[in-house]
Amino acid sequence: MIRIGIVGGTGYTGVELLRLLAQHPEADVRAITSRKDAGTPVAQMFPSLRGRYDLAFTDPRDADLAGCNVVFFATPHGVAMAQARELVGAGVRVIDLAADFRLQDPQAFERWYKMPHACPDLLREAVYGIPEINREAIRKARIVGNPGCYPTAVQLGFLPLLEAGLVDAKHLIADCKSGVSGAGRKAELNLLFAEAADNFAAYGVRGHRHHPEIAQGLAAVSKTPLALVFTPHLTPAIRGIFATLYAPIVKPDLDLQALYTKRYAGEPFVDVMPAGALPDTRSVRASNMLRIAVHRPSGSDLAVVLVVEDNLVKGAAGQAIQNMNLMFGLPESTGLEALPVLP
Amino acid sequence: MIRIGIVGGTGYTGVELLRLLAQHPEADVRAITSRKDAGTPVAQMFPSLRGRYDLAFTDPRDADLAGCNVVFFATPHGVAMAQARELVGAGVRVIDLAADFRLQDPQAFERWYKMPHACPDLLREAVYGIPEINREAIRKARIVGNPGCYPTAVQLGFLPLLEAGLVDAKHLIADCKSGVSGAGRKAELNLLFAEAADNFAAYGVRGHRHHPEIAQGLAAVSKTPLALVFTPHLTPAIRGIFATLYAPIVKPDLDLQALYTKRYAGEPFVDVMPAGALPDTRSVRASNMLRIAVHRPSGSDLAVVLVVEDNLVKGAAGQAIQNMNLMFGLPESTGLEALPVLP
Amino acid sequence: MIRIGIVGGTGYTGVELLRLLAQHPEADVRAITSRKDAGTPVAQMFPSLRGRYDLAFTDPRDADLAGCNVVFFATPHGVAMAQARELVGAGVRVIDLAADFRLQDPQAFERWYKMPHACPDLLREAVYGIPEINREAIRKARIVGNPGCYPTAVQLGFLPLLEAGLVDAKHLIADCKSGVSGAGRKAELNLLFAEAADNFAAYGVRGHRHHPEIAQGLAAVSKTPLALVFTPHLTPAIRGIFATLYAPIVKPDLDLQALYTKRYAGEPFVDVMPAGALPDTRSVRASNMLRIAVHRPSGSDLAVVLVVEDNLVKGAAGQAIQNMNLMFGLPESTGLEALPVLP
Amino acid sequence: MIRIGIVGGTGYTGVELLRLLAQHPEADVRAITSRKDAGTPVAQMFPSLRGRYDLAFTDPRDADLAGCNVVFFATPHGVAMAQARELVGAGVRVIDLAADFRLQDPQAFERWYKMPHACPDLLREAVYGIPEINREAIRKARIVGNPGCYPTAVQLGFLPLLEAGLVDAKHLIADCKSGVSGAGRKAELNLLFAEAADNFAAYGVRGHRHHPEIAQGLAAVSKTPLALVFTPHLTPAIRGIFATLYAPIVKPDLDLQALYTKRYAGEPFVDVMPAGALPDTRSVRASNMLRIAVHRPSGSDLAVVLVVEDNLVKGAAGQAIQNMNLMFGLPESTGLEALPVLP
Repeated sequence: MIRIGIVGGTGYTGVELLRLLAQHPEADVRAITSRKDAGTPVAQMFPSLRGRYDLAFTDPRDADLAGCNVVFFATPHGVAMAQARELVGAGVRVIDLAADFRLQDPQAFERWYKMPHACPDLLREAVYGIPEINREAIRKARIVGNPGCYPTAVQLGFLPLLEAGLVDAKHLIADCKSGVSGAGRKAELNLLFAEAADNFAAYGVRGHRHHPEIAQGLAAVSKTPLALVFTPHLTPAIRGIFATLYAPIVKPDLDLQALYTKRYAGEPFVDVMPAGALPDTRSVRASNMLRIAVHRPSGSDLAVVLVVEDNLVKGAAGQAIQNMNLMFGLPESTGLEALPVLP
Repeated sequence: MIRIGIVGGTGYTGVELLRLLAQHPEADVRAITSRKDAGTPVAQMFPSLRGRYDLAFTDPRDADLAGCNVVFFATPHGVAMAQARELVGAGVRVIDLAADFRLQDPQAFERWYKMPHACPDLLREAVYGIPEINREAIRKARIVGNPGCYPTAVQLGFLPLLEAGLVDAKHLIADCKSGVSGAGRKAELNLLFAEAADNFAAYGVRGHRHHPEIAQGLAAVSKTPLALVFTPHLTPAIRGIFATLYAPIVKPDLDLQALYTKRYAGEPFVDVMPAGALPDTRSVRASNMLRIAVHRPSGSDLAVVLVVEDNLVKGAAGQAIQNMNLMFGLPESTGLEALPVLP
Repeated sequence: MIRIGIVGGTGYTGVELLRLLAQHPEADVRAITSRKDAGTPVAQMFPSLRGRYDLAFTDPRDADLAGCNVVFFATPHGVAMAQARELVGAGVRVIDLAADFRLQDPQAFERWYKMPHACPDLLREAVYGIPEINREAIRKARIVGNPGCYPTAVQLGFLPLLEAGLVDAKHLIADCKSGVSGAGRKAELNLLFAEAADNFAAYGVRGHRHHPEIAQGLAAVSKTPLALVFTPHLTPAIRGIFATLYAPIVKPDLDLQALYTKRYAGEPFVDVMPAGALPDTRSVRASNMLRIAVHRPSGSDLAVVLVVEDNLVKGAAGQAIQNMNLMFGLPESTGLEALPVLP
Repeated sequence: MIRIGIVGGTGYTGVELLRLLAQHPEADVRAITSRKDAGTPVAQMFPSLRGRYDLAFTDPRDADLAGCNVVFFATPHGVAMAQARELVGAGVRVIDLAADFRLQDPQAFERWYKMPHACPDLLREAVYGIPEINREAIRKARIVGNPGCYPTAVQLGFLPLLEAGLVDAKHLIADCKSGVSGAGRKAELNLLFAEAADNFAAYGVRGHRHHPEIAQGLAAVSKTPLALVFTPHLTPAIRGIFATLYAPIVKPDLDLQALYTKRYAGEPFVDVMPAGALPDTRSVRASNMLRIAVHRPSGSDLAVVLVVEDNLVKGAAGQAIQNMNLMFGLPESTGLEALPVLP
């Protein structure tokens, strides 16, 4: 059994880790911390966990995190980097679901997250946690920077095209739509039901923190310089990301369907749908699957790639567990095989 | 034109007043206050108002409320009673959409709202603002306590039965369901889209502030002592209250349909639907109409009364304007004739 | 492994059986039939099943149902009773998710479902499939009539009170709210998103088929004659039933909390919540758990019982699998342990 | 008063016409037809209209359409062109909310709508009903082809750029999101609440009937050859279209904000929002307003134009009434001034 600690368990990625780990045969959740709610049983805050978790939230200072094999940080940005050195020094592996170990450049981190990076040396060794790109490095990593929800969908969507050098990487567009849980469990006016329901809005058009993360990942595989326009929108759904990606094809006879099918053959959590298919977010709801369909509108030189994922699973907690499985030598799908919930 | 001031305009009842008053031919909104957002144009906070309101929120101290003919309070409880004396003294009429002038008994007010009443003498003269009950008194009132959203639906639903003394008033049940806007524009976790959507919950089962308000109103018309069980629920809709009311009938041959039809004949904003009809909240969405259907399940001695209203219109801002029309001698429906928005 | 056939797999209970059975270690789904969609792979109709089911829908005539150990009927009413005799004769056990084997009285069946019962003798031996009531009988049953979604919630909610004879059974009220999937996967106008969203409606007030089913079950355990008013409503959620139950208490010092806790002690899928708790439907979403909270409003002689379940799981497919587990000697929770999906 | 007939009033555009015309001081709705529902009072089918419309649906053969001044067709495609000649001959003006008079080329009509055009001569004289483009022609038109919902938003969004010749018209992208009412009041599985809620999907990626309509309109104003990729999506909202438009700018120092502000100065129903603004669909809900915000992401040569409209108002019934006002010499905003419903 893997002894597991979770730092900051009162948000949506925290409770989603708990939900998924309850079904994981090798998971032994030993501690879950919350400064503010120390003492509260997790099943009191989240009645969906009643009968399955006896744990209460503990103050971070009282939790024996050093006695864990792995610690997940489901915290605001800045917490994981403050504690990582001590944990890693104690032989604990760290998976950060926030942004502390995503951007390789400490200056970029500081620019976007408005705080200096606390441990640039650890940042250098941290591995960016998309298994479909960095599988081998993740197995050995001491620290994994678990990707953002948008970056997972957008990178896996563009990846085959950029690796193959078949598109004009200077003119990429990612028009993305996210369910409201993507913004976290925060009491903010614009996330209220009465504000977000029966509504559709763009946000972050002038700059979103996931932009540099996506660009970094795509540039790493692109054979040519890259520029991306990223437009996030809020759609009135609880879960789900839908990414509509546009890329100008530079090789007219490109067989998109074959390219994607081959690239993701054997991947347990990337499903390339048949030609002509139109994915929807509910086809991955509450599961770790990401589905892709590729299209090429008639009379156009654009590849149109449609990607769906559950932002809290493949876009956060599920991918974190997929990374944990790799780090501990377990079959990659362990505990992640539940089918999507439909309807 | 009626010179109008609105105190506390950044909540849902405030913006709903602005929406409805824009269509009112006699309304001249002169001031709208917000301590926190003073200086912000209302159309910046609520882009739906762009092009129709040049007003900015002003600090309450800077607003010439005494120069208005009527001031609406769309504030938290406790604000209106602190300012009412000065306004009334200046000849301004006051319509409070909060609870300060709803409960006639200052002790009951203190018990439920956790603050002593600031002006029990004014409370005595204040009129409870349901036109279908207090029409004549409202015309002359200097201060109107505009009813809560649940109380409007529940009182108008039970009213004909209690006035006629045809039910066992000791065993009334009001099982009520409200859209999320009823809780106001407040950044609270349980009102988040990701919490309230695809969900249904009860709340306030142990005691809800609208219970004494409803009981006071019903007791005033009941011929016998009265007891009410009130169970509010939250339904994932933006607007709308649906009240399912149960009352034991004591006169077996009672013609419910005739009773209700007669009681509300001529009322512009109470629609008694035909026998067998099943109302839905969208049939009144964004309008001041309240619809009632009466049923009597076979084999039962219960009257089952179904009531729908828009909590922000007939349950708040619309009824407040209906009261204003009465107070200023205008036709009661002025500015309130827009049809419900369906779908 | 249990060889399983599913008749009529294109509705919500059918796809929910497939979702749940994919996680069941002893389930081997061998056939799934649909006259209309014979030949279509199930994963084409329901992409959420991609990669986990190779089955295609088969014409009922071509499916080897007699070679199965158990056949689930997820069909319209009337289909199961036409095929049950042949299957049972071949040693196949039958679990009907429609109404053919729910009402013990063939005349009642005919009155409510507008068709004569095809096999009154089999109806006599059929067992009504609520394990918390009929556990031992279910183990040995050849035919199980799986309960309706409302009846499961309402019966389990009232059960302890009626068994104990502590309420006035002549005055029961069940005010129930259901998500839209409860109406099935049928192309009907009133189930459209644009009709049902941002709306709340009552229906079936004059008579609903679940009424006689509930009354039959409650009368069987009640010590005194019983009468029930049942008011179903449609709430804009995909899944979930919320039942608010009212019963007049005849024993003033009754300890409701203790009564329920004791009655359901040890039940794997009935969770009696702590005193004062307020359940919500999402706390059971996509799981087989049913949660109950009991209240007693001050100044009232009513017990107010709040019950939540997922209509497609404990209210349909999950309970059917719970019954299958009992019938085949498996631990009752096998394959049903996934936690609710929240948010 | 304008005598008005509506052919095919049982869909969403029909009931929306009724809602809006009830507030129009010059509208006298004389007839509304439905073959299937002849005899049914409109207020029985749509209780939101109770008390305001005494009309019943009449069989088209019995309606005195020739006695009207204007007839709206809120019908499936193909109906208006079959009746237009007779009506026009009788001096009645025709506004078709379906597609019969949108595509100028009869062959294109036949290709996309799978039926030959019944009156190519009338098609030639018909005017495409976007007042912001064709105001003067609409005034004199006998037949107006009222635009589709997507085409209104996309054309008005791209218009200033194309008229000015400042973008590469060969590389336009319109990524559009529509509420479910845009698909009409049709009993189809994919429009069910339980299918469309908590979901997000693309559709029509291989070809959508609004594509040729948009392309025709844009080509007419573009100074250079034009190609457009159009990706429609379904979002779980009742009303609202959100169009995210991408166009490569060919003039680096272009002042987008000034361009749009100038183009739409004085337009009563096009609101160019301030620089940096992010529109949302609820800011136009139930109103005839269309709002536009223009952006230019840093490091990119793309103009990103965000457009919101209510698909049933400015995208259908509201624009039809705007056209009617022009045709009958009324102030263009008559009856269309109600503010958006927020929240």
